[in-house]
Amino acid sequence: MPELRKDPIIGRWVIIATERAKRPDDFSKAEKKQLKKGFCPFCEGNEDKTPPEIYAVRKGGGKNTSNWKIRVVPNKFPALSPEGEVRKKEIGIYQYMDGVGKHEVIIESPKHYKSLHNMTKREIELIIETYKKRYLALKLDEKLRYILIFKNYGEEAGASLSHSHSQIIATPIVPKRVSEELYGARYYFNENRSCVFCDMIKQEKRHKERLVFDSEHFLAFTPYASRFPFEVWILPKRHTAFFETITQEEIKSLSKTFKFVFSRLHSVLNDPPYNYILHTAPASMSDKWPTMEYDYHWHIEIIPKLTKVAGFEWGTGFYINPMKPEDAARYLRE
Amino acid sequence: MPELRKDPIIGRWVIIATERAKRPDDFSKAEKKQLKKGFCPFCEGNEDKTPPEIYAVRKGGGKNTSNWKIRVVPNKFPALSPEGEVRKKEIGIYQYMDGVGKHEVIIESPKHYKSLHNMTKREIELIIETYKKRYLALKLDEKLRYILIFKNYGEEAGASLSHSHSQIIATPIVPKRVSEELYGARYYFNENRSCVFCDMIKQEKRHKERLVFDSEHFLAFTPYASRFPFEVWILPKRHTAFFETITQEEIKSLSKTFKFVFSRLHSVLNDPPYNYILHTAPASMSDKWPTMEYDYHWHIEIIPKLTKVAGFEWGTGFYINPMKPEDAARYLRE
Repeated sequence: MPELRKDPIIGRWVIIATERAKRPDDFSKAEKKQLKKGFCPFCEGNEDKTPPEIYAVRKGGGKNTSNWKIRVVPNKFPALSPEGEVRKKEIGIYQYMDGVGKHEVIIESPKHYKSLHNMTKREIELIIETYKKRYLALKLDEKLRYILIFKNYGEEAGASLSHSHSQIIATPIVPKRVSEELYGARYYFNENRSCVFCDMIKQEKRHKERLVFDSEHFLAFTPYASRFPFEVWILPKRHTAFFETITQEEIKSLSKTFKFVFSRLHSVLNDPPYNYILHTAPASMSDKWPTMEYDYHWHIEIIPKLTKVAGFEWGTGFYINPMKPEDAARYLRE
Repeated sequence: MPELRKDPIIGRWVIIATERAKRPDDFSKAEKKQLKKGFCPFCEGNEDKTPPEIYAVRKGGGKNTSNWKIRVVPNKFPALSPEGEVRKKEIGIYQYMDGVGKHEVIIESPKHYKSLHNMTKREIELIIETYKKRYLALKLDEKLRYILIFKNYGEEAGASLSHSHSQIIATPIVPKRVSEELYGARYYFNENRSCVFCDMIKQEKRHKERLVFDSEHFLAFTPYASRFPFEVWILPKRHTAFFETITQEEIKSLSKTFKFVFSRLHSVLNDPPYNYILHTAPASMSDKWPTMEYDYHWHIEIIPKLTKVAGFEWGTGFYINPMKPEDAARYLRE
């Protein structure tokens, strides 16, 4: 019997369709497209093939030279432009504004073959430290109301280059899905006088069946109403709405959690394509409300891109997931 | 300069990223995966290879025999089950219910090579008539609160068989995206005392630049805040929230519109994969509010599946569209 499950934050129902149940092999066997081999502008030595860097960690001095560990550069084909005016305009019933914003790329390693599943914990820490640094820097620009940190890995997940990288898009608006989550969490808080994410952590730790990894400061689990097979969420145990408050100790713990989760996804699903998105409170003070500190809770959502079954899903927000999150968690743990 | 555009119904912002602008050829050249050839359970003569039919149009008598024009059968791998109990249950903070519902497949032609772009108008009319018949039949079941009619065409769009077919999923809940649209339309109505969809029709007819096809009873256009390249919406000109009120004359006009739109998509984009979804008011009286008749307006959304750029989009509801809807409409018209 299939099951309908409701996400407690935004009230989205999903179908867990056991009739279509699958094993990890069914996903991993899928023929994999190879990204074009050959020249890579992100590799060490090709620093002049990217726009000039915004930030880097490297031994010795210099800019846009070799010997770096991590680099941040503007996206060569930015979705948003640094110029322009942030003001809503109207044509009849429609509203628009200039596509003002920032679009940066974090090149996570000088080595082409490195990725989250085979990096050292220290290398992953450096990525998270860089997320924090760039977040804090972009937050100073009052025009930018939301800072979105995410990764596309693998061609099927929208990556156009295979060299390990993340992206940051800073926008003058708060994305819809983020607002929904903020409002959902506030509604839950008003009803229950507690944070829905904190309550999830408590319940997941008690039930255990959806746990993937329990580190000192973070909990990784497959969410109860998973939209996709092997969807994994990582929640900080310390309640805070704001990613940028992450401490050095927490960065270490998150790096450990990343290493476990991405190594396991890699081995269970044979190097699957995936997206992850860091969900945090809006960057601009003007989008915060007084209780946001209590009712929201930043976190990371990881979405392996395994199914094409997801045909009409984006059109309806109604997902059919052929794998029980409890089964996915067991595969990832064992 | 990229542009941020807001959908007037649900308030979703999209980025129209002109820096990444493309021509139709850039999409159509993409290597196409072929669905497995060989035996097809939907072809005429193989009626015993599907579950027994629920409805069919055929010459002469008989059931599950040859000589049919259209057949409706239960999905062999249903996402929802006809059995079970519609009652919310709880585990801690989570809610769930039995996956009760109906999942039907409409086999649109006895011939394997037929599809919307090469069918006759009469053949397409028969499909729409069948949508209406099945809608009215499923609506009688009070357990089913929403009836979702959609099509996945091509493997990239989630179709597992290439023989032309649509699907109907009738669910005990109203999908999230549908509720959002209902509430968005109600909000607009309360603010403006007019239907947002009717106002779109007026403005699109006046501006013309996004028009694709203008038939007697339907208007096809690329929406102002298109999420995807070549996204097309088809709106009935007569205001009504309820698809099932479609008249025979309107069916003829919709068939003509379908024929134009799908022939054009086929030739401009070289047989692209796509999804379409029929958006209509909830089937169950208990989900209707007194003003729904005035504030909602049924329609069809067509989403060609051309981009993988759409990496993080589902996670954020924030879409980056590399093609201006005005350009897409021009390609489709000319």
